[in-house]
Amino acid sequence: MFEQDLINKKNNIILDDSKILNVSSDFFRFEVIHKSKKSNARVGRIYTPHGLIDTPGFVGVGTNGTLKALDNKTLDELGLQLMFANTYHLMLQPGSKLIAQAGGIHAFANRSMPIITDSGGFQVFSLVYGGVAQELKSKGQKKLDNSVIKINEEGVLFRSYRDGAKVLLTPETSIQAQKEIGADIIVSFDELLPYHSDKKYLMRSLDRTHRWETRSLIEHKQNIKNQALYAVLHGGVDKNLRKKSVDYLLKLNFDGFAIGGSVGKDRYEMFDMLKFLMPNLPEDKPNHLLGIGDLESIAGIVPLGVDTFDSSHPTRCARHGLVFTKNGTMRVIKKGNAQNFEPIEFGCQCSTCKNYSMSYVYHLFKAKEIAGLTLATIHNVHFMIELMKDYRRKILDNLI
Amino acid sequence: MFEQDLINKKNNIILDDSKILNVSSDFFRFEVIHKSKKSNARVGRIYTPHGLIDTPGFVGVGTNGTLKALDNKTLDELGLQLMFANTYHLMLQPGSKLIAQAGGIHAFANRSMPIITDSGGFQVFSLVYGGVAQELKSKGQKKLDNSVIKINEEGVLFRSYRDGAKVLLTPETSIQAQKEIGADIIVSFDELLPYHSDKKYLMRSLDRTHRWETRSLIEHKQNIKNQALYAVLHGGVDKNLRKKSVDYLLKLNFDGFAIGGSVGKDRYEMFDMLKFLMPNLPEDKPNHLLGIGDLESIAGIVPLGVDTFDSSHPTRCARHGLVFTKNGTMRVIKKGNAQNFEPIEFGCQCSTCKNYSMSYVYHLFKAKEIAGLTLATIHNVHFMIELMKDYRRKILDNLI
Repeated sequence: MFEQDLINKKNNIILDDSKILNVSSDFFRFEVIHKSKKSNARVGRIYTPHGLIDTPGFVGVGTNGTLKALDNKTLDELGLQLMFANTYHLMLQPGSKLIAQAGGIHAFANRSMPIITDSGGFQVFSLVYGGVAQELKSKGQKKLDNSVIKINEEGVLFRSYRDGAKVLLTPETSIQAQKEIGADIIVSFDELLPYHSDKKYLMRSLDRTHRWETRSLIEHKQNIKNQALYAVLHGGVDKNLRKKSVDYLLKLNFDGFAIGGSVGKDRYEMFDMLKFLMPNLPEDKPNHLLGIGDLESIAGIVPLGVDTFDSSHPTRCARHGLVFTKNGTMRVIKKGNAQNFEPIEFGCQCSTCKNYSMSYVYHLFKAKEIAGLTLATIHNVHFMIELMKDYRRKILDNLI
Repeated sequence: MFEQDLINKKNNIILDDSKILNVSSDFFRFEVIHKSKKSNARVGRIYTPHGLIDTPGFVGVGTNGTLKALDNKTLDELGLQLMFANTYHLMLQPGSKLIAQAGGIHAFANRSMPIITDSGGFQVFSLVYGGVAQELKSKGQKKLDNSVIKINEEGVLFRSYRDGAKVLLTPETSIQAQKEIGADIIVSFDELLPYHSDKKYLMRSLDRTHRWETRSLIEHKQNIKNQALYAVLHGGVDKNLRKKSVDYLLKLNFDGFAIGGSVGKDRYEMFDMLKFLMPNLPEDKPNHLLGIGDLESIAGIVPLGVDTFDSSHPTRCARHGLVFTKNGTMRVIKKGNAQNFEPIEFGCQCSTCKNYSMSYVYHLFKAKEIAGLTLATIHNVHFMIELMKDYRRKILDNLI
């Protein structure tokens, strides 16, 4: 099919299907409980078929359906309300069809609480350009991988890194896979561009992403299956394009709005963009900032009104022996910790701190025991949960 | 000091110290509950300051004070009654003095149930000749490591693999280190010879090991600290030497008897040696077979009257994706397991089987998730605990 034909056809579907697009999703609900008098921060609740998510809330990354070094029963006990799983990885292993056979991701992975999946689109970017940091370093010039065979109007054709098989990811196949996986919140298919993109390509990509997201919505609304669908706002670091993305996507009946793509080369550019962007988002729908979760960024984005955000930062830090405390991030392997018979953080109620000393965790890292990775991960995830409780309390008290 | 002088001096101590040697250890008690009418198998109970150990019982190996891929709180919940920790490793990291400072290994590692430590002597062997399997392969010819600087009457001088520091391990320093570590059961210092040893060296080593063990006992009895001390019976694969070792060590007031050294190049040689050896052991003291724990060996040693035995086999198997079932050991990554939505073993009450499917565990191994190692380890340790319960039931019913 020629690309322009496809665009026309899809646009026609959108115009014709206004009825489908207005099917409501009453199993999914968002309420704002309090708006801060001091900032744009807000405390809210997202109700999903697998329970509620307090916002602002940290979303842990469980790429393959589990947080690294932690099983889901332990994670449920910790009380992490939302886990982010990666459709791309789950499509390749174990395959979305197998997860459907198992009764969906909650049954498969034994998670009782809410799950969000991405569209797989992020991997289009990271396969071609490497991770965000690598891309910024190479100024978008370096292509790391030739596994992406083709990107066109239809979608992305790539080779599985597992078995070399060709996989076609389109808005429709992404949504279908996410239906099979069965998360509570799914995300529409997008192209993620590098920070260093020329404006012409950025504009062309943005328009195509909007068409992809519309196709995602159409695919979703035909078979909602108690899932909520978030749009992904794009436009890179160009405010006009960001505004264009908002204007386009807010007209469609998405259940929430994720902020995707590069929002800046550093934290300050990101804050600046979010200051501009957030007031344009609807108050009655939840928003999600993709891929952000370091402590300094959180301190900046919560007052701007971000509801949820996901990051592998806390779990990756844990595995690298970096534990979070109220006094900042601390190296496990640090002078003095060998003899520190207090918990990682005094007063911390996580099972690691209630059961083990800093000295013992230090020993486990020194002795390269796997148990050390798990204990540090439990602590950091608990820290994030408590941190967000604290943020919510402060917003309720108009202190933030 | 010249070696012969040292021998004489130590022998004099033994002769003079009959009083010390007869200090009783009433915090440590062993009772035989039932002797099978069908074999030499017996059901017993070892009472220790940290609770009881039902025998015959499997002892899990926690080299650095934790089973691999499992924390001690989880292990306590699993109910493994005895954990084996390695003095040599703990001496080098975190150091026995630090463990003493922490209040002993139970407090340090947060384990409520009994612990046994070895003397560190095993490492003398494995540093020089490699592991048992490697040694058998090389017929004792290959020396893998030059970290052992000197073995003489006094003890063993070696270099720490951690920081290159010289460490002198003697009966006295081994016992002192084990006192600092503070396990419920400690083991006297011995030399472990390879399977391929010439008889002359074997005899010389055996005599020296007996002197080392006597020195261990003297060191122990001066400061018992609620610990029980086991002797280690040696003599390699020579029945006369084994008998000599029994005759020598049984005269001394040890709390139990471990069987150490090579008891044969394969399972059949081992069974043959144990058939000869076991009837020579006292009925009223517990025995322990060092370093054995595969399922076929257990089936052979339990009817011979072995009380406890330690092995890293179940946990190592788990990490390599081998799970135990009543129908034998099974590969996690096996055709059919991807779609097997039943637990690893139907009816198994371990938390892995109660919470996750074989399919999910398969997925975790495929995706190289650390959580998979932990879940498989939980299953295998639970399997061993249940297996030994079953053996005890069968002995009580005279079926074994």
